[in-house]
Amino acid sequence: MSPKITTELLKQLRQVMKSPKYVQEPVQAYIVPSGDAHQSEYIAPCDCRRAFISGFDGSAGTAIVTEQHAAMWTDGRYFLQAAHQMDNNWTLMKMGLKDTPTQEDWLVSVLPEGSKVGVDPFIIPADQWKRMSKALRSAGHDLVPVKENLIDTIWTDCPQRPCKPLITLDLSYTGVSWKDKIVALRSKMAERKVLWFVVTALDEVAWLFNLRGSDVEYNPVFFAYAIIGMNTIRLFIDGDRMMDPAVREHLQLDFTLEPEFKIQVLPYGSILSELQAVGAGLSPKEKVWLSDKASYALTEAIPKAYRYLTPYTPICIAKAVKNSSETEGMRRAHIKDAVALCELFNWLEKEVPKGTVTEIIAADKAEEFRSQQKDFVELSFATISSTGPNGAIIHYKPVPETNRTLSVNEIYLLDSGAQYKDGTTDVTRTMHFGTPSAYEKECFTYVLKGHIAVSAAIFPNGTKGHLLDSFARSALWDCGLDYLHGTGHGVGSFLNVHEGPCGISYKTFADEPLEAGMIVSDEPGYYEDGSFGIRIENVVLVIPAETKYNFKNRGSLTFEPLTLVPIQTKMIDVNLLTQKECNWVNDYHQKCREVIGAELERQGRHEALQWLIRETEPLGRVQ
Amino acid sequence: MSPKITTELLKQLRQVMKSPKYVQEPVQAYIVPSGDAHQSEYIAPCDCRRAFISGFDGSAGTAIVTEQHAAMWTDGRYFLQAAHQMDNNWTLMKMGLKDTPTQEDWLVSVLPEGSKVGVDPFIIPADQWKRMSKALRSAGHDLVPVKENLIDTIWTDCPQRPCKPLITLDLSYTGVSWKDKIVALRSKMAERKVLWFVVTALDEVAWLFNLRGSDVEYNPVFFAYAIIGMNTIRLFIDGDRMMDPAVREHLQLDFTLEPEFKIQVLPYGSILSELQAVGAGLSPKEKVWLSDKASYALTEAIPKAYRYLTPYTPICIAKAVKNSSETEGMRRAHIKDAVALCELFNWLEKEVPKGTVTEIIAADKAEEFRSQQKDFVELSFATISSTGPNGAIIHYKPVPETNRTLSVNEIYLLDSGAQYKDGTTDVTRTMHFGTPSAYEKECFTYVLKGHIAVSAAIFPNGTKGHLLDSFARSALWDCGLDYLHGTGHGVGSFLNVHEGPCGISYKTFADEPLEAGMIVSDEPGYYEDGSFGIRIENVVLVIPAETKYNFKNRGSLTFEPLTLVPIQTKMIDVNLLTQKECNWVNDYHQKCREVIGAELERQGRHEALQWLIRETEPLGRVQ
Repeated sequence: MSPKITTELLKQLRQVMKSPKYVQEPVQAYIVPSGDAHQSEYIAPCDCRRAFISGFDGSAGTAIVTEQHAAMWTDGRYFLQAAHQMDNNWTLMKMGLKDTPTQEDWLVSVLPEGSKVGVDPFIIPADQWKRMSKALRSAGHDLVPVKENLIDTIWTDCPQRPCKPLITLDLSYTGVSWKDKIVALRSKMAERKVLWFVVTALDEVAWLFNLRGSDVEYNPVFFAYAIIGMNTIRLFIDGDRMMDPAVREHLQLDFTLEPEFKIQVLPYGSILSELQAVGAGLSPKEKVWLSDKASYALTEAIPKAYRYLTPYTPICIAKAVKNSSETEGMRRAHIKDAVALCELFNWLEKEVPKGTVTEIIAADKAEEFRSQQKDFVELSFATISSTGPNGAIIHYKPVPETNRTLSVNEIYLLDSGAQYKDGTTDVTRTMHFGTPSAYEKECFTYVLKGHIAVSAAIFPNGTKGHLLDSFARSALWDCGLDYLHGTGHGVGSFLNVHEGPCGISYKTFADEPLEAGMIVSDEPGYYEDGSFGIRIENVVLVIPAETKYNFKNRGSLTFEPLTLVPIQTKMIDVNLLTQKECNWVNDYHQKCREVIGAELERQGRHEALQWLIRETEPLGRVQ
Repeated sequence: MSPKITTELLKQLRQVMKSPKYVQEPVQAYIVPSGDAHQSEYIAPCDCRRAFISGFDGSAGTAIVTEQHAAMWTDGRYFLQAAHQMDNNWTLMKMGLKDTPTQEDWLVSVLPEGSKVGVDPFIIPADQWKRMSKALRSAGHDLVPVKENLIDTIWTDCPQRPCKPLITLDLSYTGVSWKDKIVALRSKMAERKVLWFVVTALDEVAWLFNLRGSDVEYNPVFFAYAIIGMNTIRLFIDGDRMMDPAVREHLQLDFTLEPEFKIQVLPYGSILSELQAVGAGLSPKEKVWLSDKASYALTEAIPKAYRYLTPYTPICIAKAVKNSSETEGMRRAHIKDAVALCELFNWLEKEVPKGTVTEIIAADKAEEFRSQQKDFVELSFATISSTGPNGAIIHYKPVPETNRTLSVNEIYLLDSGAQYKDGTTDVTRTMHFGTPSAYEKECFTYVLKGHIAVSAAIFPNGTKGHLLDSFARSALWDCGLDYLHGTGHGVGSFLNVHEGPCGISYKTFADEPLEAGMIVSDEPGYYEDGSFGIRIENVVLVIPAETKYNFKNRGSLTFEPLTLVPIQTKMIDVNLLTQKECNWVNDYHQKCREVIGAELERQGRHEALQWLIRETEPLGRVQ
């Protein structure tokens, strides 16, 4: 992977930063955040402005360009990747390390007095604007909105914004109709005494209307906004997608129905002016509810006194707690996904020794097996298929320049998942197709102990996920090892593979408490730069737990793995496991054998079934 | 304990809330926070306004009185105590429970439109003012400063503000001279480009000048403020304490010395006008550094553009990392403290069966033994001497009305500590002088497992204490048990027994990372309302750890117990311990026997030595 040469682009950007055509006054710095106007994590090609200007295309990162400097902030998952993809014009700012300055502190340290710092007000979330603006102002600088996106002005071959057809989901998938979701939302609005709710996150629009799209790769969402009033529904969406009879039927666009469920369809681009009109028409005490992560542009459309901002919207919270239709769908999706992976690993076991399987071939094969399963839609993220040193690049994606051949001498890490119409999967397995070293087994076993510590954890109702993060690290910490990423994230139901408001990470504190029905990943790891990467990831469902004393009826929770793919026992040093951990592995494998075995049998996949049976042999007793 | 009857007081308070003599406009609600003008946790009798108005005298709680209601917010440690101490005029708001409204939400729900909410601007911290003011304003109300404290106007027999003599500490105790502390502070100020630093917390003033006082019971501090400039030092302090030759010598008040170390002594009450003068004389870019927990009154003295507010001051952070003189002092203090407790427990073992020892007698006896030790100054907090159901009142203090007699049938919990000139102690032991039930042993053993899990934890440099909190709960959680308080707090060095900026609690996120030299408590517990309380607390020092792989040279930390008092093995169900936990207990007891045994021997306390030897017999092997 050679870095993108950005000298010329940076020169152009620095020119437009001073050009009266685009800016009222020259800006001495320009911020290029990661997201799109919906603060999405995964974005459409037309929104990959940060990747365009820097070359770094990981899912998280913020670029800041000044007249003298160009700097990129990203987190531990991407330190290696960013260093590889960016040329010498760029300074990598490793977030999470003690000596790395914040963007604000860095700007203050490099800017001349009284500078202007520009940013696209549609791309920067309101909470971030506020924090940054305050810090800059207190140092004598100004954060200013630059209406025209400056990257777009120099991006001559910028692709079009996608506008793909929609998928409608019926009750058997969603469990709740979009009308009932609107009713529930309005009741939350009434509780908080707000009259309007603005839906800005793409997955929230999709969830609310029981629609899916494919405007953004891997995330079944579509570009849209909505404004929900107590009696009105406005949906902002482009293209002829609303001409699709199935969509019209689903949204009951051509029915005479209760006026409070009548959907007014408006162009995507008219959200700002419509919202400004809403804002202008408010009487005192009438409030508009927005996420505090909504864009600065939309937030500013509502006068400050009328805004009601919360870190998590009622849709975000409702969406996270899966109902029984969604849970059952997720179970089905994970069974199918496990079938595909059993096929894959069986195939790899035979093919890898021949020396013909590359990371890309393995990833493609995984997709091929998944696509054979019912209701497969697409992958849920770019497959991380990595062997040897590539495994240490936490969010690695094989490309021809980096593509290694799998061998019997190296650890292979596969982090992959799919979108099925009934659910979203995300699973990581770390395999060795030869004989792992004692050190590799040792590290794998610590990671496994961490995985089990979270998966088997019992905790009181109301516990926030971040309080479980250290459980995943304890065994690693004891030996002086750690990993620089969170332990788990929320997972959508045929929606984004990363979703809030819950998760398991030392980095968040504002996560909502875990409750039964929430679905998160459990994915500790260990990475040795230049050598190998290890990660063991299951998607797990929060379920009520039985305990001896039940927290005086406060109730207990634990996790049930939805992912049912064998964990390679060859990689386990059984002597490092407690009897309880050993039993956990054996019980888990027993369940894999029963549930996935039955499905392999049903699908007539006999060779994969034999592989499953072999891989789920119980571990010997701990000495 | 019968509740305080507050009907008449509340009537009087509601009158002054409307009286033009004290308020410009009537206030519909009046907030009575817990702290004093220094946001101290422990306060002088003249500052116990919240206890005066409500009867509830726990260390944490905020009262709000409206025309119709009187409500008290406090945390899990005090639910029972507050319920006992307050009459029916008061509603208890249990913080930390899901359905408890915040003060702001509650105010908004009960106040008539456009209300004024009053508070003493010297008592409310600036950050709290800001949050509350914003929430109230957005609901159409106003938070207003009421200059004269309204409680003081109805508190006819309010005691005088204390003004006791000072103690000077020489280098053998402090390790660093006050001049060197000023130099270090100024270098931090230069780093942040601030010209002034305002010392508002009492323990920070005491630490900075290597002085101690006794204005507040249990906390060796004195009422004072300081303003440190780059070349000036102003100390605001009342009384004739500055006439003491030892103090004058210590502060070099009568020397001709470098002008930047010349201390200008001013009256305590002149801080506001002096600070306003500083604020008025600032040029652009000149900043004044204050804690964001400094009072609203002092914060407002500096125009907003000139304020530099941080959650932790450089003094707070420097003070938390003990130097070797302080650490050695803390070790000595803990050895003496353990001697006193060995004497006490030996005495209790003989006396309790006679049925003549009450909670108060036991507490007094503990103080008596402590006071026999060298450099004893006073207790470090009110001794929690509680037996049976009283043990479940987490911050219980025995008073004649509640005073139970210790017996061979109930668990006894003693949480106590002292101030010695060389260090501060805080230790909890839970004992049974008869035969504990299987259930009591089970609960005790889970608490012990939690205590060990924290104490023996190994974690990378830079880890924040709150990430260790769940380790203390895991064994309890597994059985559906929990406790409603944090696991540990910072401990001062002959200073406040509770200090920031580090700790081990699920409640904080803004704690500073743990580093070698910090000292915290490790005190999980379990409380069964109406039956018993269990807590096991050691004070522990953060030390570098040896690990196999040492986090790629990031370095590891762990804890070393400074407290060396036997943990009653009679209460342990050995079958619930792992071999590692069993070894921890045996190693700990071995160290108690060696270190404390030698000191008991030296002090000629032979009977207590025999008790120590019996109590530190190794546990039998785990089956």
